[in-house]
Amino acid sequence: MAAIPAAAAMAASNMARAAVRAAAATAAACGTRLADSVPREIVDDIFAHALKKQTGVSLKYMLDFGANPIERQLVLSAQFLQKELPVRLAHRVAELENLPYGLSSKPQVLKVRDWYVESFQELRSFPGVRNVEEEGAFTDLLRHIYRRHANVVPLMAMGVSALKKELSDKSFVTEMPEIHQFLDGFYLSRIGIRMLIGQHIALHEPPKAAHIGLICTKCSPWQVAQDAINDARSICLREYGTAPDVSIYGDPSFAFAYVPSHLHHMVFELVKNSLRAVQDRFDDGEEEPPPIRLVVAEGGEDVTIKVSDEGGGIPRSGLPRIWSYLYSTAKSPVQLDDSVVESGGPNVLAGYGYGLPISRLYARYFGGDLQIISMEGYGTDAYLHLNRLGNVQEPLP
Amino acid sequence: MAAIPAAAAMAASNMARAAVRAAAATAAACGTRLADSVPREIVDDIFAHALKKQTGVSLKYMLDFGANPIERQLVLSAQFLQKELPVRLAHRVAELENLPYGLSSKPQVLKVRDWYVESFQELRSFPGVRNVEEEGAFTDLLRHIYRRHANVVPLMAMGVSALKKELSDKSFVTEMPEIHQFLDGFYLSRIGIRMLIGQHIALHEPPKAAHIGLICTKCSPWQVAQDAINDARSICLREYGTAPDVSIYGDPSFAFAYVPSHLHHMVFELVKNSLRAVQDRFDDGEEEPPPIRLVVAEGGEDVTIKVSDEGGGIPRSGLPRIWSYLYSTAKSPVQLDDSVVESGGPNVLAGYGYGLPISRLYARYFGGDLQIISMEGYGTDAYLHLNRLGNVQEPLP
Repeated sequence: MAAIPAAAAMAASNMARAAVRAAAATAAACGTRLADSVPREIVDDIFAHALKKQTGVSLKYMLDFGANPIERQLVLSAQFLQKELPVRLAHRVAELENLPYGLSSKPQVLKVRDWYVESFQELRSFPGVRNVEEEGAFTDLLRHIYRRHANVVPLMAMGVSALKKELSDKSFVTEMPEIHQFLDGFYLSRIGIRMLIGQHIALHEPPKAAHIGLICTKCSPWQVAQDAINDARSICLREYGTAPDVSIYGDPSFAFAYVPSHLHHMVFELVKNSLRAVQDRFDDGEEEPPPIRLVVAEGGEDVTIKVSDEGGGIPRSGLPRIWSYLYSTAKSPVQLDDSVVESGGPNVLAGYGYGLPISRLYARYFGGDLQIISMEGYGTDAYLHLNRLGNVQEPLP
Repeated sequence: MAAIPAAAAMAASNMARAAVRAAAATAAACGTRLADSVPREIVDDIFAHALKKQTGVSLKYMLDFGANPIERQLVLSAQFLQKELPVRLAHRVAELENLPYGLSSKPQVLKVRDWYVESFQELRSFPGVRNVEEEGAFTDLLRHIYRRHANVVPLMAMGVSALKKELSDKSFVTEMPEIHQFLDGFYLSRIGIRMLIGQHIALHEPPKAAHIGLICTKCSPWQVAQDAINDARSICLREYGTAPDVSIYGDPSFAFAYVPSHLHHMVFELVKNSLRAVQDRFDDGEEEPPPIRLVVAEGGEDVTIKVSDEGGGIPRSGLPRIWSYLYSTAKSPVQLDDSVVESGGPNVLAGYGYGLPISRLYARYFGGDLQIISMEGYGTDAYLHLNRLGNVQEPLP
């Protein structure tokens, strides 16, 4: 199973490299669209960075590094980010310049690209981080960049949606594996960039108990799951006036190092889906809806959270859809506010149908995975595997 | 999910074609090992057949065809088999001639190849099926061939085992994807060949209620599962002196068209594994072992059977092993008797560690699949998906 995200990341990485080469070639030969709006030397700088190797870190590394956020370490962290972030941003710019089906020229995608270019420029023109004062100024820049990119996902979704409308042949549209693969890699990269920035910013915040930046060293999956269940049931109650029960099994005292906001996001998504399925299936109120079961399992390598419902499931042939960015059930995209900037938590993507694929990326980001198996006519089981050791290096598309 | 077996079959099919081309080229250029023991014209005939396209049928087709096993239809069926079986056998001979790592020259593999060659020759030299008498003689030949190939799986397993012993570098041995892929295709093809032969033979037997040959038109997965549970618990009781309970959920009266012996084999395998896991985890007798749960779900496309245990599961990293033909936990191969020839049922492969991969092939053969998800530290869930419509054509590696 671990091979799936690795292979996907590798494929995405190959794709990214190919895109860089193609974009660089275009840039060298006749200028890109980018060259229309950005000075030549910056375009060259971007493509030079797009050819550099990205440097991944692991959760364990972030923990070790942030264990003592003394000033010297903050300066070192800032220096790493000033070197690393332009490389990661440049990879994405090169990709955004070379998307198939004309996606690159959609206004929303151009806007996203411009954000990446602006952030690249600002990081590159920042004079350097040699002391605490400069580190402070650099962290202000990071906060600014973090806020700028807050709405990347909905904007990209609008771009993809516009493209879909354009391409009328639906059966063709549903089979745009390059777009899907690009978005998987693009969003995975975004998770990494925001984790790195969020972690650096969080090291400046007043310390929270058992936290190193965004990472909780004693994260209880049982407790996070319970919170996510409460939140999801609240929303269900608001929408339906009632909500099925959720039984939770496992050891409440078990804890491991993880990012609670990521975990909350993923479990919330799974429980929300199960609540909706059960609610919709038992909406006549004639039968007591069967409770959703959430199990927290503690293994040597993995912590696994299983969410099982008897909401009727979906046919096996429908499963690819739940992972797709190309089927949206949303009526119209909702503009998201960026008030959660400092939390490091992912945006709520309700209405985009992106909940499951993005949750899977959060899981894979730290070496885990998300699997869904459905039994048509009965219910669905979701398995969230989390790498317990935190020693897996970020996948870098 | 349906894409997995299709892709695997396609990959295996490509591999088979490549093997045929290579073998044919070798045969043309300088003679094969085969040419040492078999007359030239037969070698040529085999490779000519190995280049022909195999013709797949669906469960639905077998049902429709066998619905009225009047003499005329038996003759037609025999004519189809006389044409089709040599093609399928020849594909396998060509593959067996071209296996990597020297597997082709292992005595056990040579023996299997010789069986395929012998059956090919007998079918090719059979004069023709034009009437009932000739059909009777042809069916006798089929019975003979069916018996001859009874022990193909253990013999191949011994060949692979011998190869493994030879290659001392274990980490290398565990990564022989070509061998795994070949065996998946080879055994899948064997399932198809034996199904076709078994079905033809069974049409000669006294008719059983609601059966068309080996296919039961009113196969109750609940009932077959209950029988498989009883059989697996008997074995567990014999081995351990005790056996965990198995609770079964679903509608006993629901029925669909399937081959009960295949279904029994797969469910027996899954329940047996769960019983063993639970028994081993709770062997101190201090705690009551939690019951295994078996759910039969009835969907529009699929019938799904889920077997869940709390036997402690296995780590995610260990999952590839359970599908591998290259890890055997058996001490020594057990020679199987061929008394089950006419039953059309698969051999019991206890001790080979082949239970799960072979069960998955049985599922895929009729368009289904078998998935296993494990929660380390908790338990394992197995999902057996069966195509309910029976309209999927045999995958033909």
